Amino acid sequence: MKLVRLRQSFEELARFTVGGEGINRLAYTETERNARNFLIEQFESAGLAVRTDYAGNVIARREGRDPDLPVVATGSHIDSVYAAGEFDGTAGVLVALEVMRSLAEEGVETAHPLEVIIFACEESARFGASTLGSKAMTGRLDPAYTRSLTDKNGVTLMRAFEENGLDLEEVHLAERFPDELKSFVELHVEQGPVLEKQGKAIGVVSAIAAPVRFHIHVDGTADHSGTTPMDYRRDALLGGAEIALAVEKAALAEREHGTVGTVGVFSIQPGAMNVVPGAADLYVDIRGTCQGSRQRVAAALETAVNDIAKIRSLNIWMDKISEEEPVQMDSAIVAELKSICEDRGVAWIEMPSGAGHDAMNMASLSPTGMIFVPSKDGISHNPAEYTSMEQLMEGAEILRAFLLKQAKVI
Amino acid sequence: MKLVRLRQSFEELARFTVGGEGINRLAYTETERNARNFLIEQFESAGLAVRTDYAGNVIARREGRDPDLPVVATGSHIDSVYAAGEFDGTAGVLVALEVMRSLAEEGVETAHPLEVIIFACEESARFGASTLGSKAMTGRLDPAYTRSLTDKNGVTLMRAFEENGLDLEEVHLAERFPDELKSFVELHVEQGPVLEKQGKAIGVVSAIAAPVRFHIHVDGTADHSGTTPMDYRRDALLGGAEIALAVEKAALAEREHGTVGTVGVFSIQPGAMNVVPGAADLYVDIRGTCQGSRQRVAAALETAVNDIAKIRSLNIWMDKISEEEPVQMDSAIVAELKSICEDRGVAWIEMPSGAGHDAMNMASLSPTGMIFVPSKDGISHNPAEYTSMEQLMEGAEILRAFLLKQAKVI
Repeated sequence: MKLVRLRQSFEELARFTVGGEGINRLAYTETERNARNFLIEQFESAGLAVRTDYAGNVIARREGRDPDLPVVATGSHIDSVYAAGEFDGTAGVLVALEVMRSLAEEGVETAHPLEVIIFACEESARFGASTLGSKAMTGRLDPAYTRSLTDKNGVTLMRAFEENGLDLEEVHLAERFPDELKSFVELHVEQGPVLEKQGKAIGVVSAIAAPVRFHIHVDGTADHSGTTPMDYRRDALLGGAEIALAVEKAALAEREHGTVGTVGVFSIQPGAMNVVPGAADLYVDIRGTCQGSRQRVAAALETAVNDIAKIRSLNIWMDKISEEEPVQMDSAIVAELKSICEDRGVAWIEMPSGAGHDAMNMASLSPTGMIFVPSKDGISHNPAEYTSMEQLMEGAEILRAFLLKQAKVI
Repeated sequence: MKLVRLRQSFEELARFTVGGEGINRLAYTETERNARNFLIEQFESAGLAVRTDYAGNVIARREGRDPDLPVVATGSHIDSVYAAGEFDGTAGVLVALEVMRSLAEEGVETAHPLEVIIFACEESARFGASTLGSKAMTGRLDPAYTRSLTDKNGVTLMRAFEENGLDLEEVHLAERFPDELKSFVELHVEQGPVLEKQGKAIGVVSAIAAPVRFHIHVDGTADHSGTTPMDYRRDALLGGAEIALAVEKAALAEREHGTVGTVGVFSIQPGAMNVVPGAADLYVDIRGTCQGSRQRVAAALETAVNDIAKIRSLNIWMDKISEEEPVQMDSAIVAELKSICEDRGVAWIEMPSGAGHDAMNMASLSPTGMIFVPSKDGISHNPAEYTSMEQLMEGAEILRAFLLKQAKVI
């Protein structure tokens, strides 16, 4: 595999953007379609047979000696958020391309077929819904829901499908079935600071975390800040402040399970210099790979909320607004990835993924794993997103070794 | 004095509003001018000689037997905020009118002249500047500043003066001098909950509190809330939450001095469900009548801010944005008001005023005091503002007794 060629792939793909700060290559747009067509040519040049499925997923297949054996698959996505970086998603696609090029050059043959999948519409940036391609492939797409999706310019998902020569009414035909796949592994940038901070090259993902989310409304009294003594106040901001700190405390207590808790949205009313805040609204995201741990954080938060309401004479409502299930990676794949890292003397850790990925859907179809490579300063969804070519090449070595082991070199 | 007549005064004055929720009688508007003219007639009917000064202050004078003796004055304002109640300011004017009517009916004569002053533009609602009339009367108005004032419709204060037959260039001629006045006492609704909560009829104001204000900016890192472990975060919201609680703690420690501390404005960036807050902005109002106490709160806050910045690895800037001086009421007047309450068996307390009033400027010209009557639920600057006629009559008795004692009944 060649670092220089991998770098060139990134440079070439980065040209497919509508302009503006960073990369802007939203799902199902002409720009993304052009990028997809460019990559189809690249995979074909590397000897793969490429098809596009009913959801717009690109499936590039490198035939095995026995075409009837289940496929060993890898892949990620090339659509982006607004003002994105160059590595989220593209890393998994371009590293897989480099692996395929190296296999072609070396004339490697495998028993099982290999596939590189470019999933459609992984990011929610355009239609407010994420991982549409992998949901379609795994039969997890609700037809009524997809028909309701519209971008901010009023373009429906149905229309976007048409612009790509697709028919949303046929999207269910993209579904694949368990006997088709032997395994699926996605290489992705970490999008967090852990590998960099711990000086590790590879993260072997144990599970993909999912959030349980709450809206908390704090109701106090908006009083004049000059004329209301401290003892007579029902200050909603102070209640909210204690709740935010309680979220942190509860999450810190579950540190060993990697559970995190965040108040990302916090607003007060009326928000005037001379008025004691009368109301506060908090949105809380508690995320983890262990449901028990996540539940303990939520329970500790609820206890804290009740105490705060009582002590401060505030009325507080805490409503669960969503709850998604964490997804465990396949233990045999996790073990195999670890042993490959060990054998090659690569510094690795086992870690959860805090963000969602196509692998989360693929796990319902096939034994699934993920390989993380470091993100500089943990920055992602931002033009400053960065992973060095050397780091990507280390990931490529692990991915290639895994694919060959699974697909059985002849 | 007659409760029924006092109620009628409130009902009549409440008709002077432009409509909308509550009372809307902004300073120097036609509506306020009409209200002023109505009251001028009422004072004239009660035998007072009325003039309007160069700032639009109305001065209604009840001559004393010796016109050369210094004046015993009272008064307040009749301009309002948007969607105001019926009592803020008007209480002090209409109660004084009732006192004057009773003196006329009873044929009471005094050695010193008495005056009721209706101050112009006490509220900052229209021009963003408060107590303009009393500032003019006490020579505290900066000419350059007044020329810069404009309302939200682009009407300058200069133009508003013209509409009232006044000339802003002559406003300095409104200044009065210490030998003109023997004392000034303002009756006002408390605008806070203390009298009601403590079951007292009268608050004898010891001092008028003033705020020192700070802007605090907290700079952390906006990270992905799923991929960033708790230990690697620099969460600006949590730093801000601790600061808000530190303001409360520091103010509670100064409870005996009546100092209060409030974070009334609190905002975070970027404010997204899945992003750890990267920045927070707080506006802090610390208010008290004792500068030493206020200073201790500010110092405790500064210490807390430094600790929080260190422990949480946040960058925090704390800037003082304004600082006004508390104003002490005249101790002889305070003593006289207390003794009048005692003699009459009226339940009273000595208390600070947390809000600003015209009395705060008048204190620079003359020995000054204030009488508070209760505000239901502490509500003010709101259509729900309420003080009963019985409570106002108790205030009227104290004000009348004070004025007669000062002016010496013959």
